[in-house]
Amino acid sequence: MNMQQTKTVQQLMATMGERARAAAHSLGLASTEQKNKALLAMATALYDNSSTILAGNELDLEAAGEAGATPAFIDRLKLDTARINAIGQGLEMIAGLPDPVGQVMDAWERPNGLKIERVRTPLGVIGVIFESRPNVTADAGGLCLKAGNAAILRTGSDALRSATAIHDCLAEGLTAAGLPEHAIQLVPVKDRDAVGEMLRGLHGNLDVIVPRGGKSLVGRVQDEARVPVFAHLEGLVHVYIHAAADLQKALAIVRNSKLRRTGICGAAESLLVDKKIAAEAGRQLVAMLLDAGCEVRGDAAICAMDPRVEQATTEDWTTEYLDAIISAKVVDGLADAIAHIEQFGSHHTDCIVTEDEAAAATFLREVDSAIVLHNASTQFADGGEFGFGAEIGIATGRMHARGPVGVEQLTSFKYRVHGNGQVRP
Amino acid sequence: MNMQQTKTVQQLMATMGERARAAAHSLGLASTEQKNKALLAMATALYDNSSTILAGNELDLEAAGEAGATPAFIDRLKLDTARINAIGQGLEMIAGLPDPVGQVMDAWERPNGLKIERVRTPLGVIGVIFESRPNVTADAGGLCLKAGNAAILRTGSDALRSATAIHDCLAEGLTAAGLPEHAIQLVPVKDRDAVGEMLRGLHGNLDVIVPRGGKSLVGRVQDEARVPVFAHLEGLVHVYIHAAADLQKALAIVRNSKLRRTGICGAAESLLVDKKIAAEAGRQLVAMLLDAGCEVRGDAAICAMDPRVEQATTEDWTTEYLDAIISAKVVDGLADAIAHIEQFGSHHTDCIVTEDEAAAATFLREVDSAIVLHNASTQFADGGEFGFGAEIGIATGRMHARGPVGVEQLTSFKYRVHGNGQVRP
Repeated sequence: MNMQQTKTVQQLMATMGERARAAAHSLGLASTEQKNKALLAMATALYDNSSTILAGNELDLEAAGEAGATPAFIDRLKLDTARINAIGQGLEMIAGLPDPVGQVMDAWERPNGLKIERVRTPLGVIGVIFESRPNVTADAGGLCLKAGNAAILRTGSDALRSATAIHDCLAEGLTAAGLPEHAIQLVPVKDRDAVGEMLRGLHGNLDVIVPRGGKSLVGRVQDEARVPVFAHLEGLVHVYIHAAADLQKALAIVRNSKLRRTGICGAAESLLVDKKIAAEAGRQLVAMLLDAGCEVRGDAAICAMDPRVEQATTEDWTTEYLDAIISAKVVDGLADAIAHIEQFGSHHTDCIVTEDEAAAATFLREVDSAIVLHNASTQFADGGEFGFGAEIGIATGRMHARGPVGVEQLTSFKYRVHGNGQVRP
Repeated sequence: MNMQQTKTVQQLMATMGERARAAAHSLGLASTEQKNKALLAMATALYDNSSTILAGNELDLEAAGEAGATPAFIDRLKLDTARINAIGQGLEMIAGLPDPVGQVMDAWERPNGLKIERVRTPLGVIGVIFESRPNVTADAGGLCLKAGNAAILRTGSDALRSATAIHDCLAEGLTAAGLPEHAIQLVPVKDRDAVGEMLRGLHGNLDVIVPRGGKSLVGRVQDEARVPVFAHLEGLVHVYIHAAADLQKALAIVRNSKLRRTGICGAAESLLVDKKIAAEAGRQLVAMLLDAGCEVRGDAAICAMDPRVEQATTEDWTTEYLDAIISAKVVDGLADAIAHIEQFGSHHTDCIVTEDEAAAATFLREVDSAIVLHNASTQFADGGEFGFGAEIGIATGRMHARGPVGVEQLTSFKYRVHGNGQVRP
């Protein structure tokens, strides 16, 4: 790329930032009805224009195929009528969520009669950087809109034609509801410098970045972004079977946590078995996993349980397999389990299985992860399962948003103070 | 400075970061009783060691005097028995505040029986960079501790001996309560590179920075920090006198907002008078200010009200005087007032004076500032006045913390999920 093109991308992104900021201002004052009208009109436009979207997707698929993309990549990129309908239904579901903007979070009165309210406001402009999954265009754009935020969307370049066709439908919905057309913008070029510009914050016109994709994308964004990032790098999720665990619950929870879907961030990657119950329950858990087709990589004590277990290396304790593989270890009690999780975990989601309420309470208090569970599958780590309706992602940072990030956490707040002439002595 | 010294400061700061992170871990699990015991023991240590603190302060004052410090600088630096007692009382007051850590912010049950709780957790490690005001050592350290956070404090170098003597008392209190001694650390060197290391985040061991001081300090921190910052650059605070204002309230609120204390961030810097009432109410407001010794810099319409008014320049609309000076302008109704505030304000604190509830509601909704007031003095922009007990500062950012930042906003949260064997279908 030559200097001229770089300059053009910089200018393009700067202009997108300015337009987003201007759109965010009016979007912050838009009524719930207007935002919902836009979301529903977007869904209608998606249904009405599915053939155009599929035509764009077909070109993306052809190019990706020629470039030698993997079947998994092609599957994520591929749209069909059912998938387009699901995207539209997602927007309709977001329309049905409560509007967080203007919600009174807290209200109190001071002795001098001042009434203070803390109310939710939009965050401003949200940048979403995602891989070649066309559906994220609508999911992320819709969630940002519902919370009164402008969005700047950057798709993986292999999905640009698909995303553009979907974005056209979003723009149609915005216009139909009388909302600013720049409320949701899609970066229209494949140039990777566009990402760099977003990471630098578009001259103060980008308030937060949400990366949606694999570890390399998220890692780059976390390392380089000069604006806050809502993300998790990986889900090194543990299930700890405590000495007082109910074996049937343990078997069901471990199986579900690991194997229901192996490719999601809430899938378990490490099994910790208490020494006191290793001999019997541990053996059954390991056999169940192996019988179900899961590879088990264990420490010496786990290896001794079953000849099919492979020896774990140090690396296994920090590997997010996203596959039918689990690392397993015998731990010496609750404190040892917590220490292992603190040392090797990623502060995403961790679970204890026990009938001992005191042990559960200690685990839930001391394990410093965004989500800590007692006697339930780690695959509940999901905004929908939390009742948030939808999520833009799961965050492991400690600032502002943590755990599943739904519309509510895409907001900020301000204080409204109602007086009757009070002055300060 | 030579290379060797730079390396030493880097090592020093890196070690402080590691120690803070380790301390934060146990501090996050400390009981309320233990934290309060530490705070009260700190206060006792301050009272008991006041002569040592005053001796350190005397040396700081001498050195500052020899270096030609201004009387205002000397006044901020100076301690006496009354000021030391006030610092101790501040710590006792923090001990009396509710402990935010472990508070259940929200709790709900899912249709599948999962019980989900959102509970407050500490943020982690908080860096506080302040000017030569020794009291901030205890105020900031105490607030961070109460919220379960480790603190790394960096004082203005002219106050290092005073701050060190106060910090010794804090360390004594921590030890007395059995809390880690590195829960509150003071950067022990004057070297400015220490600030640079903090701005770069101490290798992930600093979660947020709070700058306490003037615009140049805050500006540098906001520009250069690679970690989140809780701060406001300036308070360009407006009072808008609407057409339906009660004149007596307007006179009292404007006088108090501007003149009660002119040097605080909640002091009004701009008066906006509605055109409809400019002739009579405007004239009285301007005369009141001038008679009270306040310089008024007005637009043409304000200048015409009184010969003592000076002509405002464009710069006046964006100047935080922190002095008995106010800029004043006649605006053409509510929308014009809001537009002026959006264009020139700093999103800190803004006020409308009116008896028209609908106009007030519009103002409170549309003005995008951390604090928006109706019929009350802008000098209520203060954590104590909000009922927070104490604040570490006022933030105008939109992420995480906004407005007065008390102990509650020095926390993060996590989700606790209680199940009974649930797995995901």
